[in-house]
Amino acid sequence: MSEMEPSSLGLRRIDLLQGLSVQRLNEISKQCAWRNYRAGQRLVSREAADRDLHMIVAGTVRVTSYSAAGRETSFRDLEAGTSYGELSALDGCPRSVDVVAIDSALIASLSPADFKALLREEWVVNERVLLRLTDLVRRLTDRVLDLSTLTVQQRICRELLRLAAKDHEGGAVGRIDPAPKHAELASLVSTYREQITREISALVKMGVLSKDGNALVVNDVVRLERIAGSDPAA
Amino acid sequence: MSEMEPSSLGLRRIDLLQGLSVQRLNEISKQCAWRNYRAGQRLVSREAADRDLHMIVAGTVRVTSYSAAGRETSFRDLEAGTSYGELSALDGCPRSVDVVAIDSALIASLSPADFKALLREEWVVNERVLLRLTDLVRRLTDRVLDLSTLTVQQRICRELLRLAAKDHEGGAVGRIDPAPKHAELASLVSTYREQITREISALVKMGVLSKDGNALVVNDVVRLERIAGSDPAA
Repeated sequence: MSEMEPSSLGLRRIDLLQGLSVQRLNEISKQCAWRNYRAGQRLVSREAADRDLHMIVAGTVRVTSYSAAGRETSFRDLEAGTSYGELSALDGCPRSVDVVAIDSALIASLSPADFKALLREEWVVNERVLLRLTDLVRRLTDRVLDLSTLTVQQRICRELLRLAAKDHEGGAVGRIDPAPKHAELASLVSTYREQITREISALVKMGVLSKDGNALVVNDVVRLERIAGSDPAA
Repeated sequence: MSEMEPSSLGLRRIDLLQGLSVQRLNEISKQCAWRNYRAGQRLVSREAADRDLHMIVAGTVRVTSYSAAGRETSFRDLEAGTSYGELSALDGCPRSVDVVAIDSALIASLSPADFKALLREEWVVNERVLLRLTDLVRRLTDRVLDLSTLTVQQRICRELLRLAAKDHEGGAVGRIDPAPKHAELASLVSTYREQITREISALVKMGVLSKDGNALVVNDVVRLERIAGSDPAA
């Protein structure tokens, strides 16, 4: 059995590479460009020429998407073990996101040619990428349907119900603790912060929600479900 | 060189299988279930238990998507040579669409296990599926951004400009002939027919559009672009 080389140790925690042999991890490790980033440093910009697959060996990064008009529309944070840049590595098209390090990060980057060779030779990785893309297509399709058929108010109510369900133990009261920032909630349901502030105030005034320190309390789950559920075009 | 068997002839026109050897097409042909459908007959329903990949050897089919509330939200027509059902064949999850034959159709269906074996053994097909999923993710992401950042009016104006550009020869007047049905336009921009009717009437009243028999004439492209372009949140 081959020995694991120091740099390959970091690759053992990458989700995408689970199930590969030590020998294969050693090979990939040598193909990678390894880079350290400081907190706040930009890892990928929309104008970048590289089409590499980037694997987060350590640290956390923030991925921000932009509309054609340049408005920031959503962001998600990625932890060590995950990767980004699969789309551009596969199709060679420009990136649509900016990526910034939140804390100091170690990134291992694989060229498109090496990434494709890996997919071709290792079905376990290939199938994982196919399933991720499939999952992404399904979630984006749901989001398009939500955006097409639900009002902003309904989308907010659905997101609140989803968040409350995490702590909710089947009773009539749900608690979201800590309450998400309005900008975060706006990103989750694809709208503007101002609209979140307006809708939350309206729900508080109706008695459906109330604030309790850093938490948001759902006083009336049934009513929130009713607002969330009705078809706007029915 | 192996001879092509009668049923494999039909598989030669399937986009997904381009580049495969005659021998491989013969093998796939034997793995497939072959079925004929009459116009109007349902090929796939959302409740169907099968997770097969379906290849359209002859005919045209209509794929209709539904929201959770059961409202029809969009449709697209697929011609002979194309295929559908890749997502469920890959992840085993339920389908989100209904498929109905528009004219009489011949469909060759491959089981999930045979589809995955094909991907595993034939990189040319595998890479094609990866690129299709990547393209779909990019287009859906754009659509989410459009839906999040543009008003319905702007989305309609952008779609009209896109349609007019097909006939438009660089002059100041565009012509869309024949004009799309309001229900079609609603499906293209993810809104309701009533909103299309309202917005088109408003644009006619403003003098930006006018009707000419079955055609829709864009009298003022610059003004339509201005309405389409402005950031609603700017």
